[in-house]
Amino acid sequence: MEQIRTIEGCVTAPRGFKAAGVRCGIKSQGADLALIYSDRDCSAAGVFTRNAFKAAPVIVDQRKLASGHARVIVANSGNANACTGKRGLEDANAMCRMAGDLLGIPEELVHVASTGIIGVHLPMEKVSGGIRDAVSALSEQGGEAAARAIMTTDTRPKMAACELKIDGSSVRIGGICKGAGMICPNLATMLCFVTTDIRIAADTLQECLNEAVGQSFNCLTIDGDMSTNDTVLLFANGASGCPEVRKGTPQWSVFQAALESLCVDLAKAIARDGEGATKYLEVRVINAATRDDARAAALAIGNSALVKTAVFGQDPNWGRILCAAGRSGATIVPDKVRLYVGDVMLVEKGEPLGVEPEIARRPMLEKDLTITLDLSIGSANATVFTCDFSHDYVRINAEYHT
Amino acid sequence: MEQIRTIEGCVTAPRGFKAAGVRCGIKSQGADLALIYSDRDCSAAGVFTRNAFKAAPVIVDQRKLASGHARVIVANSGNANACTGKRGLEDANAMCRMAGDLLGIPEELVHVASTGIIGVHLPMEKVSGGIRDAVSALSEQGGEAAARAIMTTDTRPKMAACELKIDGSSVRIGGICKGAGMICPNLATMLCFVTTDIRIAADTLQECLNEAVGQSFNCLTIDGDMSTNDTVLLFANGASGCPEVRKGTPQWSVFQAALESLCVDLAKAIARDGEGATKYLEVRVINAATRDDARAAALAIGNSALVKTAVFGQDPNWGRILCAAGRSGATIVPDKVRLYVGDVMLVEKGEPLGVEPEIARRPMLEKDLTITLDLSIGSANATVFTCDFSHDYVRINAEYHT
Repeated sequence: MEQIRTIEGCVTAPRGFKAAGVRCGIKSQGADLALIYSDRDCSAAGVFTRNAFKAAPVIVDQRKLASGHARVIVANSGNANACTGKRGLEDANAMCRMAGDLLGIPEELVHVASTGIIGVHLPMEKVSGGIRDAVSALSEQGGEAAARAIMTTDTRPKMAACELKIDGSSVRIGGICKGAGMICPNLATMLCFVTTDIRIAADTLQECLNEAVGQSFNCLTIDGDMSTNDTVLLFANGASGCPEVRKGTPQWSVFQAALESLCVDLAKAIARDGEGATKYLEVRVINAATRDDARAAALAIGNSALVKTAVFGQDPNWGRILCAAGRSGATIVPDKVRLYVGDVMLVEKGEPLGVEPEIARRPMLEKDLTITLDLSIGSANATVFTCDFSHDYVRINAEYHT
Repeated sequence: MEQIRTIEGCVTAPRGFKAAGVRCGIKSQGADLALIYSDRDCSAAGVFTRNAFKAAPVIVDQRKLASGHARVIVANSGNANACTGKRGLEDANAMCRMAGDLLGIPEELVHVASTGIIGVHLPMEKVSGGIRDAVSALSEQGGEAAARAIMTTDTRPKMAACELKIDGSSVRIGGICKGAGMICPNLATMLCFVTTDIRIAADTLQECLNEAVGQSFNCLTIDGDMSTNDTVLLFANGASGCPEVRKGTPQWSVFQAALESLCVDLAKAIARDGEGATKYLEVRVINAATRDDARAAALAIGNSALVKTAVFGQDPNWGRILCAAGRSGATIVPDKVRLYVGDVMLVEKGEPLGVEPEIARRPMLEKDLTITLDLSIGSANATVFTCDFSHDYVRINAEYHT
């Protein structure tokens, strides 16, 4: 799509947005408070965890999104403000109020997000100091600092931006996200903030985001756990001066494609940086009877600890892959199945081809691996983005709390 | 129940059964071929994997069970004979034929089971030598040898037996099983063979087994994977001389209770010996709206890699427990929830109680840990048997194939 061009940058690439990331001392080291700010009113959309235990900031954001308007996101890492009861809700609201007061913006236009340990109250004195510092630090170059300030066990910041033409106007989309552990459809301890200077109505923006998340973050799994805090927020401030993008127009199609592509890039960046990951794994299930079947089989493979440890061990243990698909509930006719690891076919019509181990292993030595399961009974496809499962995953998660 | 008494022994405890376990060289070391034999016709029942990819021996056994009669089980470890196509079926049938020929028993009365690597054809020359040796070695003391010969990554043989009175006759039930990895409802690379000298019709026996498996092996999860080979076989030969046990009678109730208790003991033994396990973990979800809800929440907790690594790390990270339950789909009213780790209540009415870390950690230092989640909205309960998730799980599964 020649109209869409990847560019450097992230949430501060679109016009009218500033950001900051500062350290306030919630984590033992590193920046832990992020702020994203628009100089004018935005249409706002959001997608949130479906976990029954929703963190306080999720509850606060969901309520505010009803208005469809917003201007600020304040986010912290190191503490999820989840399972924190009434005081947690008060703290989340206080974060919004503080940021709004300092910026002269109504609290209702300030959104909040948190990621980190569950069940511990926020150290609000530190947080309020951080919000003050972040407001002072806001700049058009602050996107990467914000990306760093939302990291937990992530090893690197995750950013993406692109530029596209809408009726001759150059418009931009930018995003940051964090992931690492607890990543599973639907979402995870995944935070993602996307900004754009397109002009669009809030309800249309929400539809665009739902579709983009379905094709990206909801295809992402690290360990099968869906967190209490998963949040994707998308703000559109119209600062590009482009005409309003309306649903069903060619302009809308280009924006939708660009947004999806950006979200897929961010989702893959999360998979690549999964806790302890040594390899990126993409699981494609093709020619399934239904889309739900394709997705169930792809997720079963992508979530299988046995498949993921085999990938870590660079072992073409295709039996584990079939076995995971077999228990997914998807309709499978065993003697129609083809299985590829990389571009090497290992199973055809359900029979092992007896490929030499050194040939079967070759694609597994690469940093990126694709597993393709062809069920050969329909035309529905699904892809899952994930990673391998290493010693370090266990180390990180056994030691995280203490 | 005073009528039921645990005794030493396993499949050779009931009268009329012999067994053997020998080495034929499928595995790099240790015994790998087991035989169980009844000196007379048995009523037979079985429960099998629901994986779409069923191993050849599962397909063979399911077909034979239609008759309700059997006398012999031949089983190997080191090779699952799964995803092995037509030749796999021929090999499974050949194993039955060889054992039947040597024992002078029709092939139709011989059942077969395999566990180990998937997708590799059985080394039939070794297997046939093993069957010959096992037939020669059959004895009334051979049960433990058989238990050892079905082990894969198990670190110890798993056996149980009990004695009960049926109308004044002393009758016995004995079992062996193997598990280790790939254990998940419904069943796993789990093989379990149970014998009894009770007299009972095959269809009644099958109902008893279904119920017992539902309360035991289907409450067991190690890593969320359900294998291609899971098999539970139950043979009843009537050699105790007791009157036939009929459904709905007091005798039937006692037998059912004894069978369930034996299966629960074997299932717990599998959880305790999960791959890399350092702790036994029992997850109880109580007062759920429905039994399905209770089970979904208990399984989500019991399968959560984040919960299991926290248990390995002896870390009372109760947020992960609530989070796993929250994504299970079970109906949960967050502010009604109570959570206990061991007998320490950490969350009440959805609010963290702020228990001192050293007190919360105390139950986690034990070898056996119980997590109890009280949803306080109904009266349905479910229990899941599992284990923690250690460095060794990853090591074992990354290195298993090569």
